[in-house]
Amino acid sequence: IKCKTLLITILSQSFRDSQFLQVTRNWTFYFLWPLPQQLHQSADRDCLSPQRFSFTYGRDSAAQTGCSVLDAAFKRYFSIIFPDFTTLSGLLMPENDVKTRGCDGYPDEDSDESYMLSVSEGQAVLRSVSVWGALRGLESLSQLVYQDDYGTYFINKTEIVDFPRFAFRGLLLDTSRHYLPLYAILKTLDAMAYSKLNVFHWHIVDDPSFPYQSRTFPDLSNKGAFHPFTHIYTQSDVIRVIEHARMRGIRVVPEFDSPGHTQSWGKGQPGLLTPCYKGSVPSGSFGPVDPTVDTTYKFMESLLKEVKFVFPDSYVHLGGDEVSFACWQSNPNVRKFMEKMVERLKKNFICTKKFGDTVLEIWKGAKYQTELSRMTQAGHRVLLSAPWYINHISYGQDWRNSYAVQPQNFSGTDEQKKLVIGGEVAMWGEYVDATNLSPRLWPRACAAAERLWSNEEKTLNADLAFPRLKEFRCELLRRGIQAEPLFVGHCRHEYDGL
Amino acid sequence: IKCKTLLITILSQSFRDSQFLQVTRNWTFYFLWPLPQQLHQSADRDCLSPQRFSFTYGRDSAAQTGCSVLDAAFKRYFSIIFPDFTTLSGLLMPENDVKTRGCDGYPDEDSDESYMLSVSEGQAVLRSVSVWGALRGLESLSQLVYQDDYGTYFINKTEIVDFPRFAFRGLLLDTSRHYLPLYAILKTLDAMAYSKLNVFHWHIVDDPSFPYQSRTFPDLSNKGAFHPFTHIYTQSDVIRVIEHARMRGIRVVPEFDSPGHTQSWGKGQPGLLTPCYKGSVPSGSFGPVDPTVDTTYKFMESLLKEVKFVFPDSYVHLGGDEVSFACWQSNPNVRKFMEKMVERLKKNFICTKKFGDTVLEIWKGAKYQTELSRMTQAGHRVLLSAPWYINHISYGQDWRNSYAVQPQNFSGTDEQKKLVIGGEVAMWGEYVDATNLSPRLWPRACAAAERLWSNEEKTLNADLAFPRLKEFRCELLRRGIQAEPLFVGHCRHEYDGL
Repeated sequence: IKCKTLLITILSQSFRDSQFLQVTRNWTFYFLWPLPQQLHQSADRDCLSPQRFSFTYGRDSAAQTGCSVLDAAFKRYFSIIFPDFTTLSGLLMPENDVKTRGCDGYPDEDSDESYMLSVSEGQAVLRSVSVWGALRGLESLSQLVYQDDYGTYFINKTEIVDFPRFAFRGLLLDTSRHYLPLYAILKTLDAMAYSKLNVFHWHIVDDPSFPYQSRTFPDLSNKGAFHPFTHIYTQSDVIRVIEHARMRGIRVVPEFDSPGHTQSWGKGQPGLLTPCYKGSVPSGSFGPVDPTVDTTYKFMESLLKEVKFVFPDSYVHLGGDEVSFACWQSNPNVRKFMEKMVERLKKNFICTKKFGDTVLEIWKGAKYQTELSRMTQAGHRVLLSAPWYINHISYGQDWRNSYAVQPQNFSGTDEQKKLVIGGEVAMWGEYVDATNLSPRLWPRACAAAERLWSNEEKTLNADLAFPRLKEFRCELLRRGIQAEPLFVGHCRHEYDGL
Repeated sequence: IKCKTLLITILSQSFRDSQFLQVTRNWTFYFLWPLPQQLHQSADRDCLSPQRFSFTYGRDSAAQTGCSVLDAAFKRYFSIIFPDFTTLSGLLMPENDVKTRGCDGYPDEDSDESYMLSVSEGQAVLRSVSVWGALRGLESLSQLVYQDDYGTYFINKTEIVDFPRFAFRGLLLDTSRHYLPLYAILKTLDAMAYSKLNVFHWHIVDDPSFPYQSRTFPDLSNKGAFHPFTHIYTQSDVIRVIEHARMRGIRVVPEFDSPGHTQSWGKGQPGLLTPCYKGSVPSGSFGPVDPTVDTTYKFMESLLKEVKFVFPDSYVHLGGDEVSFACWQSNPNVRKFMEKMVERLKKNFICTKKFGDTVLEIWKGAKYQTELSRMTQAGHRVLLSAPWYINHISYGQDWRNSYAVQPQNFSGTDEQKKLVIGGEVAMWGEYVDATNLSPRLWPRACAAAERLWSNEEKTLNADLAFPRLKEFRCELLRRGIQAEPLFVGHCRHEYDGL
């Protein structure tokens, strides 16, 4: 087989108005997950030679060498496409930390992730408006390459026009019920990028433990973490997570759930929680944060100011659900407390169901359609999570349930449906830690990832999706993600390195 | 703290009539799973010094240095007890292969696993009738040792008299629906020994693939395995598994399920399977093995002779369930075929429900009590597996369901109840491979392990068992078994090395 050298131009139409990227390589079609909006493939294929393959910025591209996000992506995707030629181990380690923050800074809710990819003989052209779109295109490109039985790499002639259906495609990890070591979080971010999920919702603290090491209030983790040194996220850990995510076009939305779910906060911040009473005597246990004392507001304001500074995303999730009123009977105060916090910090907040002027997330309830209808009628922007509590497991192919969810299938006007800005997969941590996180998440979370990215009309049939998802799961394994099997069978690279 | 040197005599009352083992160390009480039959502990404790600790055979012990099983066990348990002093990595590697087969050979259904362990000041004495009992006692001993917050090792004064409730405490792995690499099997054997499970039921071949590399019929795996080199068990692999198991007092019962579940066999053995017909024309698909041709009997006899030679255990499991009669309508022939095989090979066979003069295993059906009653009334010895299909998962603490099983709680006489020789946990492979095997097995399989070993009256309350199981799960993690969490919380050694 004579391999031709292909010149691939990854053109970004405009990067803050126009950018071009170029890549030289050799390539075809295999699996693609999530399914692009428009895809045309031919049986014509070219073989690729790793030796003659290179990514190059287009001459007129607004992004050029020095663009940290894309320089790193070229390196990463070269290894992903040609694992035999490089070592995949580099994937496991994050980049050598933050250097330049240039090149679009951080992805946000307005990021344009659309791209066009045209693979022809000897060349592929990738066009995008922003680096984030270029990242999505590189991922699709990497999924187009396959190897035959002799190990030769191929790519088919392909035309892709692609963009996400929803801007917010999240995944929640809960690091309070069980601590997740840094590598588990970074690995999750890798797999999110492979699935084109773009928001890491970090449910970082909760009742059981407070692993976030605050600079303002170090006692919160000193006394509230499972262990003050082994079970915390230092400032440097947090920066690593945010940077690892940024490099993959993933936003990090931290959640500091309050005023309930704060038992662990109380250990390092005496006086914060409401003392419960039994008759006229304190019972020794504590309820939600105490809204009746001014110190609470000062503390919350300082903490959230720090959070706002440390986490660059414009969203902070304030939780707000499941407040225990058995101890704390003053419902209106909860509302007042939350509104005060939102008002003072002038960030966007995601809350659950209760508070105005924010994005509402639908967390609970089997009848999420009714909730969607009700909340969008009230004019709220909403995020759907209720049907994607992926910590709930059952025997067999339960990804099909996630796949069957139709986020805009509720009674309401077109205007109401536009208020659904996306959704997220939630992996609550009661029964999950580093021992079982990856196989429980992947490939199950891929179902929601496709629902949130792809055209619903083209992707409603789970039986048709199955072989494609099976291939994608094998590809996840090949990339070092411990994704569990969907059914009987095997993958070419299935247990090496596990 | 001044640590005393403790002299521990592990006495085996008789090893082919009497044996004594001695150990010098320093030690106390923590978790014990499964619960010993009789246990007395005091608050008195001694500290242990790894430097002054040693296992020694008692002077009058029938087993002495050179006894492969116990020499290896001493080395293994020293590392388990003092991980800070040695490296646990040794645990991951199997022993340097087969050398001496002495010292009781292989465990079998009549092996005496009872032991007595007496830990007093400066000394512990372990008595057992066989090396298998000594292994169980060493496991309990290792679970008695704990570390305080300063890392000092302790053991409390303890008296244990212990023996298994049932002789057959099995675990089934299915290596046909997904191939399991050797290390996954060896790791499972390690964890079985920690839980005192003693039969590895190797469901080695089935419809989807034939990974067993037969010396007589190499084409069976050449053509029937997922891959003829990466997805097979060579003769040397099988020997390694059997030896790793033997060293831990675990029997290996292979299963060559027939006459159904043999689709993969047909690939390497043309003419073996019944051709299915559509009207008067062969449809191109195949049914169970063809009982109407003599070649089938010759083939089966040769294959089972090889199996009998390779696997030392006196049991071979012949499956026998779920025969598809849609293709093969001659029910009486199936029975004749199976009986013929059993008769010719003169081994013990375990079958499912259908055939006489064998141990019957109850695999299916929600009403297993009725089956137990019916089969024991007919005088059959039975094995219970139906309520322990651990591949079936559900959200939350489903180990409690396994724990609630009472194998002798069915209507029948005392004689009938004695016919229950044990049970087994079955991990069928539809949705399980090396990515999720360990966290799905452990600690969930521990529930059945305790039910099969311990006194039921002392262990029926799952709430009381919970903290002990939680500790045991942490200990499994410490020993390198990727056991998933039971609930919110953390372990001291929970993610290092994962």
